[in-house]
Amino acid sequence: MRRAWLELVEATLDEVLPAADARPAVLSEAMRYAVGSGGKRIRPLVCLASAVAAGGVVGDARYPAAAIEILHNYTLVHDDLPAMDNDVERRGRPTVWKQFGEANAILAGDALLALAYRTAARAPRNVAAIVDVLGEKGVGVVQGQVEDVADAPGASAGSVDSFVYLHKTADLFVAAAKMGALAGGGTAASVARLGQFAENLGLAFQYEDDLLDGDGLFSRAETERLVHMTTAAAIAALDGLPGETSFLRNLARDLVGRTA
Amino acid sequence: MRRAWLELVEATLDEVLPAADARPAVLSEAMRYAVGSGGKRIRPLVCLASAVAAGGVVGDARYPAAAIEILHNYTLVHDDLPAMDNDVERRGRPTVWKQFGEANAILAGDALLALAYRTAARAPRNVAAIVDVLGEKGVGVVQGQVEDVADAPGASAGSVDSFVYLHKTADLFVAAAKMGALAGGGTAASVARLGQFAENLGLAFQYEDDLLDGDGLFSRAETERLVHMTTAAAIAALDGLPGETSFLRNLARDLVGRTA
Repeated sequence: MRRAWLELVEATLDEVLPAADARPAVLSEAMRYAVGSGGKRIRPLVCLASAVAAGGVVGDARYPAAAIEILHNYTLVHDDLPAMDNDVERRGRPTVWKQFGEANAILAGDALLALAYRTAARAPRNVAAIVDVLGEKGVGVVQGQVEDVADAPGASAGSVDSFVYLHKTADLFVAAAKMGALAGGGTAASVARLGQFAENLGLAFQYEDDLLDGDGLFSRAETERLVHMTTAAAIAALDGLPGETSFLRNLARDLVGRTA
Repeated sequence: MRRAWLELVEATLDEVLPAADARPAVLSEAMRYAVGSGGKRIRPLVCLASAVAAGGVVGDARYPAAAIEILHNYTLVHDDLPAMDNDVERRGRPTVWKQFGEANAILAGDALLALAYRTAARAPRNVAAIVDVLGEKGVGVVQGQVEDVADAPGASAGSVDSFVYLHKTADLFVAAAKMGALAGGGTAASVARLGQFAENLGLAFQYEDDLLDGDGLFSRAETERLVHMTTAAAIAALDGLPGETSFLRNLARDLVGRTA
């Protein structure tokens, strides 16, 4: 199942991205280079699985799933810029600005962001609500990034960090889940439950990364406690949904397994 | 009428932009600074007038009108960046990056772009088609900018420039007109006519700027001929629309008057 879903994600990304030689070629190449191929694609998988969990079919969410992956990759392109994190390598390759130049990286990120919205609007139903969610979280992820870059002078460390974690990491998971649920024709209650699932999953994902990197905000013991707490909350939110939830349940469990 | 329409645009922009103190404040301030207030707001006026020309009422297009102005201003924020045009002043004030720093300018532009799509999705009808148009032209304007920055090695000057003109300038006018027509419930024929109007208006606007700046692609006589040709084509495209078109007709005529 996971393999077929990944193939659907890759095929949809390939369909919506400009052809590699579409004019101007440097932009089309940079956009495709940024999105890459064969990654874990966790956010689009959450989107597809949420359509199913909400009672729809997986194909309902193929365009929102591609949209969230495109939006995720635009954030990486811009985060890597010299004026931001100034990173020269990502996934073992030069970053987009290092490969195509700074101006092209800014513009490729911009074009990916616009393409994400156009792609989300191809969902089979609830398009206004889907674009609203992607718009809200598209702004939210920038708000998280601003505070991360600025190191938020004047705010307490604890409050800053939970704001940053929530917006910088969890927002895209929440958008993925809610868009999938909406595309699958889910009820308002299902959309809300899947949003709760994803918010907790996103936070668990971030705490887990802190454990793996050994550079969290909290002590190791406290971070481990937070991983388990948010993972349990994510799984609990799945109760009562009309469709199959085993994929999402396993995803949350596998996440905790990463520390083992 | 024009004054009431401008007030509707300003009120809608104020409604959808984050409150100036919304966290993080530097982002909210930068977004409001970028959009400004009291400008000519030509693109949103074209959007409102297109709703009317297509047979709808002006209020139908208030959110798409705000969306196109927000999107237009994001392009200016990113175009002014050091890696792009490196401009330090716009409209007699420091540019966004000069005022708020380069990272914040990149991020404020990103947030404006996301907000533009969220705002367009608040149209009362035809949301999928509206977001599709804004997505298509949101990518198109970047394609035009890439060619403008890159100076398109290998392409002939004439073809490059019409590509750049079409995408960099006309695309946002076309999006404004089509979104307005769709929000107003216009037929496919009305949407297409208003798109034709706007494409020619956008080109006329660009040629007119060349005349005023004295730095066009063509001789002065040829540029004047192009202004008149595109203006006439714009006005001709308005024939047969179901609603009032005097605003759009006058706008096209006033444009030519700028050289007088």
